[in-house]
Amino acid sequence: MRDCFETRHSDVLGRIGELTVPRADQTVETPALLPVINPNIRTVSPARLEAEFGADALITNAYIIRGTDDLRERALDEGLHEMLGFSGAIVTDSGSFQLAEYGDIDVTTREILSFQREIGSDVATPVDVPTPPDAAREQTEADLATTEQALADAEAVDTGEMLVNAPVQGSTHLDLREAAARHADATDLDVFPVGAVVPLMNDYRYADVVDVLAAAKRGLGADRPVHLFGAGHPMMFALAAAMGADLFDSAAYAIYARDDRYLTVRGTRHLDDLTYLPCECPICTSHTPADLRGAAADERERLLAEHNLHVSFGELRRIKAAIREGNLLELVETRSRAHPAMLDGYRALLDHAAQLERHDPTSKGTFFYCSAESARRPEVVRHHDRLGRLDAPATLLLTEGSSPSGDRFDAAWRLLPPFGPVPRALSETYPFTAELPDRTDRPAQEAAARGVDRLVDANPDTDVTVAHDDWAASALDRLPASVRAEPLGARPDRDDA
Amino acid sequence: MRDCFETRHSDVLGRIGELTVPRADQTVETPALLPVINPNIRTVSPARLEAEFGADALITNAYIIRGTDDLRERALDEGLHEMLGFSGAIVTDSGSFQLAEYGDIDVTTREILSFQREIGSDVATPVDVPTPPDAAREQTEADLATTEQALADAEAVDTGEMLVNAPVQGSTHLDLREAAARHADATDLDVFPVGAVVPLMNDYRYADVVDVLAAAKRGLGADRPVHLFGAGHPMMFALAAAMGADLFDSAAYAIYARDDRYLTVRGTRHLDDLTYLPCECPICTSHTPADLRGAAADERERLLAEHNLHVSFGELRRIKAAIREGNLLELVETRSRAHPAMLDGYRALLDHAAQLERHDPTSKGTFFYCSAESARRPEVVRHHDRLGRLDAPATLLLTEGSSPSGDRFDAAWRLLPPFGPVPRALSETYPFTAELPDRTDRPAQEAAARGVDRLVDANPDTDVTVAHDDWAASALDRLPASVRAEPLGARPDRDDA
Ligand SMILES: [Mg+2]
Ligand SMILES: [Mg+2]
Ligand SMILES: [Zn+2]
Ligand SMILES: [Zn+2]
Repeated sequence: MRDCFETRHSDVLGRIGELTVPRADQTVETPALLPVINPNIRTVSPARLEAEFGADALITNAYIIRGTDDLRERALDEGLHEMLGFSGAIVTDSGSFQLAEYGDIDVTTREILSFQREIGSDVATPVDVPTPPDAAREQTEADLATTEQALADAEAVDTGEMLVNAPVQGSTHLDLREAAARHADATDLDVFPVGAVVPLMNDYRYADVVDVLAAAKRGLGADRPVHLFGAGHPMMFALAAAMGADLFDSAAYAIYARDDRYLTVRGTRHLDDLTYLPCECPICTSHTPADLRGAAADERERLLAEHNLHVSFGELRRIKAAIREGNLLELVETRSRAHPAMLDGYRALLDHAAQLERHDPTSKGTFFYCSAESARRPEVVRHHDRLGRLDAPATLLLTEGSSPSGDRFDAAWRLLPPFGPVPRALSETYPFTAELPDRTDRPAQEAAARGVDRLVDANPDTDVTVAHDDWAASALDRLPASVRAEPLGARPDRDDA
Repeated sequence: MRDCFETRHSDVLGRIGELTVPRADQTVETPALLPVINPNIRTVSPARLEAEFGADALITNAYIIRGTDDLRERALDEGLHEMLGFSGAIVTDSGSFQLAEYGDIDVTTREILSFQREIGSDVATPVDVPTPPDAAREQTEADLATTEQALADAEAVDTGEMLVNAPVQGSTHLDLREAAARHADATDLDVFPVGAVVPLMNDYRYADVVDVLAAAKRGLGADRPVHLFGAGHPMMFALAAAMGADLFDSAAYAIYARDDRYLTVRGTRHLDDLTYLPCECPICTSHTPADLRGAAADERERLLAEHNLHVSFGELRRIKAAIREGNLLELVETRSRAHPAMLDGYRALLDHAAQLERHDPTSKGTFFYCSAESARRPEVVRHHDRLGRLDAPATLLLTEGSSPSGDRFDAAWRLLPPFGPVPRALSETYPFTAELPDRTDRPAQEAAARGVDRLVDANPDTDVTVAHDDWAASALDRLPASVRAEPLGARPDRDDA
């Protein structure tokens, strides 16, 4: 099975895609959230997940089912779909987590893949080795060799129509992650989980999650569906989606609920600390915190799990709407203010602006400048690259004011922070129709100065004058020495003097 | 009636308060959202607003009721509560809007107040003059004189237990707004609407809304309940609440619904443009955009109005939770990324950091540094003021690293961007337990340098050494000339060398 994934709409590295799951006779629209179903515990039944929450797919653990007599018998007898009461796509995990946790498991990739096929899994997983973050390079390389063998074993098994995961490991060694992704991409397997990121997320290392995801994406073709394994907190869905994660799975909704924890896109709250329910979901609009605290333990767990699911699926819809509207980065802007570690994650994403730029659509709705970070967006990088290829006339005015009436210059272009020089012909195109705050901040001015620098580099003989609106010294310092900089007020020939 | 308002919890200028409304025998918890009820049109019935959305209060227009024969008769006969089917507090407007719109109305303050009392209003409004933004100063002053007379007339009417609004006008003349607030504060009226801000909000002039609100707050005692008249978009509730708005009213929920517009905390969407419903509310979790588009017009209007209400009341709960948790500014951080004009609004709020600081609690949960703007928060201003009063020893090391082992200095204090020098004794107190991003940005370093400057100003004889972690030139430039600045790596006596 190849070509199971098609991109319909994209924004940054995020995309609305269609994952064709032939065995389930189902198309899963991505980004998708797969609730994790513990085969032994049903906080919210799979049937309700499907009917009430719109879950197209879920994930459960084939290793646990295989190791539990009654579950194994039922799964082999009825099949997974019947056993769980779920008609959507069912992804199964293999025991890799248990391998990482306990050092050894009693099943091979060939055995577990065959078992997954027998019980009717739609997307199966081989026994890869999830090397934890910060592992030694040698250990990581040894683990990757084992994972490579598992992928080779998986390719050799007759899996029929069942899709098979090709996990991408490599710890926090970014070159190894990229190489592992490249290797996985070259197999004939189907879906590409980026593994062992849960410890990073648990430690709020969102910048490392972004770097790991960026490395994996560099090694994978753009048409490969990527699963961010174990990513279940809605706070970081938008950030991960913008880095190209297509599939998420949430055990958090249930595990957190068991512990009276309440998920929000701004972080986690404990029920005991809630004086108001900061949410619009059906649970939160029909209960008070006291109602929830007063409910019996199993009822409380179910109510919290349902809230957690509503928030998680709601955020997925918000992300999909943002991709369609071309404002996914604007959503990330918002989410990255939930915690300083999320800001680190967003800044890390912007470190990869050149990588993002190669996939980001060239035209969207309106660019919103919403923070200093906006000055580092892929659109700015793209325009600076273009400036390095543009021809400029012999004398050129770049101005934040209106055009001069005189003919002192061959041409007058807008000087638009954070982009820099904008030729008249581009002025009404994306992203130069940007909405900007009233006060241009230094990072925007400095980015604009870098744009001027790129243009001057490409046109060393052009005589450039910059008419700026009270730029900071740090921005003026970034202008090339050959440029004449004049404050707007000093321009004798401007219309609006 | 005085002393109708009590603050229970506060954060920034925002507070959870209790507005006692004796005539309704009701206490309204603030911040509160008052749905506007058009007496002629019921998109969502007042009974449902009360039972399903938790509305404690609503607002309707006594001028329209008075001018519509059957409404007038019913209101006089049954009373407003019976007529509307609402047991909570009912605020009534007076026709000021119509006055502003049509230049003349056929009722005096004395008449409309008596009428409001007769129909059973709980909070009545005199006929003030809502001068629009950017009005000439002379016009504004003339209008304010009329409003002052209306307030005097209102004081003279026997209003019994009914509360009476004392609107604060003044257009965008901030000194006039402040003076008008001071005048209103000196009346014996009860609730203080800040008026004529709708045109500002319609034009996305959130910075001006903040400035107007700040001016009104300067003129009003801290125990005065403030109503931001006509503020119905949930995008700006958090910002306005942080500036001290206690009451909001929303006609938007219904007006927007009529026009197929869908409110979100990130802005407004048109139903035709929605491919997903980016919301968790009971409407959005049980409908698709196609369902809504396919519904009959009145059903669609009701469904959208209910969504709009859920989002608005949900945001109010989020704000109240944030006030309780002491992270209202963190919520504003998030909301201010919804649009560049909201960023302008947040930056305007931070321009008033000294005013905010006087009311902001000195201890909260944890300070989150989430953007360059965080460097301008009231906590930073407060600490800098304190540094200007602190005694420093003869030789002092301010370090971003660990303490030195040697005895070269009389004392070693933490140097913590954005706060600056932090004496050891304060290290574990709010806000110095702040969560910071991994990368300290320039605004944080510059704020820390200003803190050093304040300390040196107060202790000119102290010999100060700053051991900084690779600060930007712009931050080093802000250090006083007398300070010796050394990069952390250069410190021979540091523990972690
Ligand atoms: Mg195969
Ligand atoms: Mg009175
Ligand atoms: Zn909820
Ligand atoms: Zn909704």
